[in-house]
Amino acid sequence: PVFNVILTHVSSTAPYPKRTHTCGELTPAHAGIHVTLTGWLLPERKMSKTMSFFPIKDSSGTTQLVLRKGHANAHLTALSELPAESIIAIEGEVLVRPELSRRNEGTGQIEVQVNNFTLLNPAHRNMPFIPSDNQTLVNEDLRARFRYLDLRRTALADNIRKRSQVSRIIRDTLHDDGFLEVETPLLLKSTPEGAREFLVPSRVGQSTAQHDGKQTPLFYALPQSPQQPKQLLICSGAVDKYFQIAKCFRDEDGRKDRQPEFTQIDLEMAFVSWGVDSNIFSSNTWRIGGHEVRTVIEKLVRRIWQKVEEITLPSSFRVITYNEAMARYGSDKPDTRIDLEIQDITPSLPIHARASFEDLGDILEAIILRPSENSSFLRASQKCDYENEPNISRSVIADSNLLNWLCDNRSINLRLSSEEHALLNKTLGVSSGDTIWLSRRRKIPEGGSTALGRLRTRISELAHARGDYVPPTIPHFLWVTEFPLFTRADPDKEFLARGRWSSTHHPFTAPMWQDIEAMYAGRIDQVRGQHYDLVLNGVEIGGGSVRVHDAAMQEYIFSQVLQLSDAEKSSFDHLLHALKCGAPPHGGIALGFDRLMAILCRTSTIRDVIAFPKTGAGTDLLFRSPAAINEEVLYQYGVRPTRC
Amino acid sequence: PVFNVILTHVSSTAPYPKRTHTCGELTPAHAGIHVTLTGWLLPERKMSKTMSFFPIKDSSGTTQLVLRKGHANAHLTALSELPAESIIAIEGEVLVRPELSRRNEGTGQIEVQVNNFTLLNPAHRNMPFIPSDNQTLVNEDLRARFRYLDLRRTALADNIRKRSQVSRIIRDTLHDDGFLEVETPLLLKSTPEGAREFLVPSRVGQSTAQHDGKQTPLFYALPQSPQQPKQLLICSGAVDKYFQIAKCFRDEDGRKDRQPEFTQIDLEMAFVSWGVDSNIFSSNTWRIGGHEVRTVIEKLVRRIWQKVEEITLPSSFRVITYNEAMARYGSDKPDTRIDLEIQDITPSLPIHARASFEDLGDILEAIILRPSENSSFLRASQKCDYENEPNISRSVIADSNLLNWLCDNRSINLRLSSEEHALLNKTLGVSSGDTIWLSRRRKIPEGGSTALGRLRTRISELAHARGDYVPPTIPHFLWVTEFPLFTRADPDKEFLARGRWSSTHHPFTAPMWQDIEAMYAGRIDQVRGQHYDLVLNGVEIGGGSVRVHDAAMQEYIFSQVLQLSDAEKSSFDHLLHALKCGAPPHGGIALGFDRLMAILCRTSTIRDVIAFPKTGAGTDLLFRSPAAINEEVLYQYGVRPTRC
Repeated sequence: PVFNVILTHVSSTAPYPKRTHTCGELTPAHAGIHVTLTGWLLPERKMSKTMSFFPIKDSSGTTQLVLRKGHANAHLTALSELPAESIIAIEGEVLVRPELSRRNEGTGQIEVQVNNFTLLNPAHRNMPFIPSDNQTLVNEDLRARFRYLDLRRTALADNIRKRSQVSRIIRDTLHDDGFLEVETPLLLKSTPEGAREFLVPSRVGQSTAQHDGKQTPLFYALPQSPQQPKQLLICSGAVDKYFQIAKCFRDEDGRKDRQPEFTQIDLEMAFVSWGVDSNIFSSNTWRIGGHEVRTVIEKLVRRIWQKVEEITLPSSFRVITYNEAMARYGSDKPDTRIDLEIQDITPSLPIHARASFEDLGDILEAIILRPSENSSFLRASQKCDYENEPNISRSVIADSNLLNWLCDNRSINLRLSSEEHALLNKTLGVSSGDTIWLSRRRKIPEGGSTALGRLRTRISELAHARGDYVPPTIPHFLWVTEFPLFTRADPDKEFLARGRWSSTHHPFTAPMWQDIEAMYAGRIDQVRGQHYDLVLNGVEIGGGSVRVHDAAMQEYIFSQVLQLSDAEKSSFDHLLHALKCGAPPHGGIALGFDRLMAILCRTSTIRDVIAFPKTGAGTDLLFRSPAAINEEVLYQYGVRPTRC
Repeated sequence: PVFNVILTHVSSTAPYPKRTHTCGELTPAHAGIHVTLTGWLLPERKMSKTMSFFPIKDSSGTTQLVLRKGHANAHLTALSELPAESIIAIEGEVLVRPELSRRNEGTGQIEVQVNNFTLLNPAHRNMPFIPSDNQTLVNEDLRARFRYLDLRRTALADNIRKRSQVSRIIRDTLHDDGFLEVETPLLLKSTPEGAREFLVPSRVGQSTAQHDGKQTPLFYALPQSPQQPKQLLICSGAVDKYFQIAKCFRDEDGRKDRQPEFTQIDLEMAFVSWGVDSNIFSSNTWRIGGHEVRTVIEKLVRRIWQKVEEITLPSSFRVITYNEAMARYGSDKPDTRIDLEIQDITPSLPIHARASFEDLGDILEAIILRPSENSSFLRASQKCDYENEPNISRSVIADSNLLNWLCDNRSINLRLSSEEHALLNKTLGVSSGDTIWLSRRRKIPEGGSTALGRLRTRISELAHARGDYVPPTIPHFLWVTEFPLFTRADPDKEFLARGRWSSTHHPFTAPMWQDIEAMYAGRIDQVRGQHYDLVLNGVEIGGGSVRVHDAAMQEYIFSQVLQLSDAEKSSFDHLLHALKCGAPPHGGIALGFDRLMAILCRTSTIRDVIAFPKTGAGTDLLFRSPAAINEEVLYQYGVRPTRC
């Protein structure tokens, strides 16, 4: 076919030749055939007066076009005049490249000699930036504003492709395991507090609530997670195993790398176990219920890493308790790749010194860095400032203070003799050249991290930043279990708790069955939950639990433990009622899909794995949202701006 | 293992036996083995003093339990005391049923003799209704309020399962075709008009816009479809073929069987064709661009019907133009299963009578019902009232009016001689006993239906309701193409159009390339769009188009045809700019997933295929949303109720 060659810079809006191949698929096997390619024209490389190379690109790859200029194809010289990033259709012949210019990657073995082309849509000569220019990445605001150009960069496009691939693996794995995907409502119930929820004004109140002369505006709320719908779904018995790749929403003040809308891999299963039927606990095992959830997730994660990373993960992931995680790593989401542990040195102290901790319910913890074992961490440790951590002190051990380093430490304030120091050094293996970080803390851990836990992370980050340490490439997955079920130590929850106990995770998490008696006896601080967090390289990528299925227990937790008011409790009326109507034992989990993808795409920001993300402040520079609204429109919803 | 038998009505919150099988999987092959089942206990059927049957149910099916009462297992009699719908775990032995009581469905070949049981969670004795009671379906409000009980009904649970199955088929088919699933934002841009959009107040304005002393509240909007994001995605070049099973939102005043949130199967493809490169049009073919989209959708739909319905659909679906659909069926989404057509009888009229229509640009249409051909429709037609359709008249032909039925028709007002009547009768094949419905209309069709089109549907509905007619079971799929690109006849759009032209579908649809010249010449009414609707049995299940990729053409449509103001146009700035930065020709489609599932589930309401639907008025009786919000919370968003 003879193409209609358009030399002026207007788009072709007539029929045009259909591509025979994509720009990523030609190989020497196609040599000699005539092909039609469509794609983005990249900048010309002039090889001689009569020969030029042009790459043509589409989402599958790039093909090198060869243009030989001569009087026989004078019409083709117009190709040189087209702006880069214009859309063209070309017709040409596939040639195997000369041996010296062959490349093994992509279509590097071939080139296509152009016989004809059609300009389908010219690009502007003054684009805000040229996406194929990898050398100079323009500033983040500009890239956000012109996201459609930024997405044209291969690196970002690859992330989008990988995200689709992983979502398919997830769905296939779960469907094959008998899970059903069920969509739950996004226009859900607002709670009276409305904390961290996005509200959606409705016109429902405006048309129906006029009988008392007032028009109370009514609101939906966008869910932070499908927690209640999925529990109700399982209680219904319609679905034995539910999953959803679910959009969730959180309206919180801009935190680094959070998005107001995010995606969860959400699942829930009926008839999960309620724990091990034994009081004999061995360490490092899954002693709570919900091991069915663990099995599904480990299979899923193994499948993803196998297919995407070609890494075979262990057949089961390590499990540690919250207490052990806090004791050894000072974090409830420890990065176990870091070969550095905290130790409780209270038992090694002389008995008189020990008492000053134990009597107050405290312990003395240490991180000991030795030149022989932790040279890179030791070097980083020397540069580590710890002014933000008042409960930390550092002792650099030398010959001069070997027998008085601890009693010289003013913040610890212990009286130890030289003999006691010598014995302590022997027990701990301390010698000159070591650095010892010390911290006093409550024996019963609280919250997400300890002072030494934060220090441990900071030392490894510093060593990494100094180029002195590279974390292992094999990912470390870890389950953390046996969290305290209730807490008073979460500042995020203080707003709603107002001094009461709050649930460490959420109020539907079941206590460990061994601790139910303690809960009913009011020993709230002793109750551990059937909750599990999945941690990858120090990042919490998911969490879930076995739920309360006993209505009386759920009611007790609401009323007696959390001391919810009747108004607060009324948000849960339907759940309580569902528990009374034949609710199976059940449990589930939610994984953060954006975070998981960021790790798989080796990027530090989830914005790189979301097609159209928002800024940290929650604005969308591309779509220019949020935006002001006509007050007449607002009036239909029964609201108006406060300022007027 | 010996189970812990709990006789009091409290839930078991200790470890319990793990099920070995589901309630739907046992067959005679399992005879003799010991099994543990978990599920919902259904009401007892006492067979004798010493024997009872209990069905136990889970989402996979039901198994018959046999309980033999005797002193050896006195503890089992407690099973009779449990409320129906309680959750139990039972241990027992699989027995093949006596020959006479064997059933072929499900687990009908076997029963399980109970040896032991554990009550996992008792059901309330006074549940609002018993879901297993299929005889008495309680009222809709009660079922909506206790949706978790309604979903326990097998019919609804089957719909939820089928929906998951179909979504999997869709994703597999599209992934296999090289489509990538990409999530687009739900917190999107509000337009100045805010028509039919749900708004989401944000606190962004509250924290940043205080420099002028005013706090203008800023809003996101929930998208009616991912139209703009998906076009920008394709323009980016990151993705060649995009799809998403996408949540969409529409805030419109309660229409029957609409939901404020609904689900679309949304797709978009780069480099779709721009139509047939020929001016010779044959009828009944796809003469516009985007046949790649057609191919994908037909494959997808065929796959779904094959797997779910075991029906092999034709390898390509029928295509008709809008004009033909309006002429023959009086509808732009005709139900072509109905064997009844409209005919334009103007050409059969004597020349003097013809002129009175043609001179005014009108035609005279008829539906002729003959006892020999349409007996059931003829009977329904007799009962058909047509008071709402002033442009319709009915002539019942008898020997007495055979030669004056038309000139007797006062609403038509024609003067025809007996000879002319005789000739007309001959041409149309009219004889005594026929019923002729007549209607005058504009020759150029407008909008979605004609008077006779609505009558045609009503007659078939009436015949169906009378049990006199059953529509064919084979589904009729139909593409409708060549719609007018612009309209003034859509009352739904009048609110925004205010007398201007509006786009029949949306302003991004490309004109047919043959009509581009007419568009630029201002002959707007002559421009047909590259739009395609997919119709199934008279229901529009999807629609899409080839998009405008030429920025100048898009700008012309916005400014010159639609006459958008600068403010209105500014919502599209980013799209216009993207078209200038190397945008490929592209096109796509969106199918209504809820409607598709309703058809596959043979239900008339989409509420039956949504796990947690809202009422027609947009309220959620289960979650009790929308709801009032504390004014302090609203204040954070810069809004307050209008009433105060």
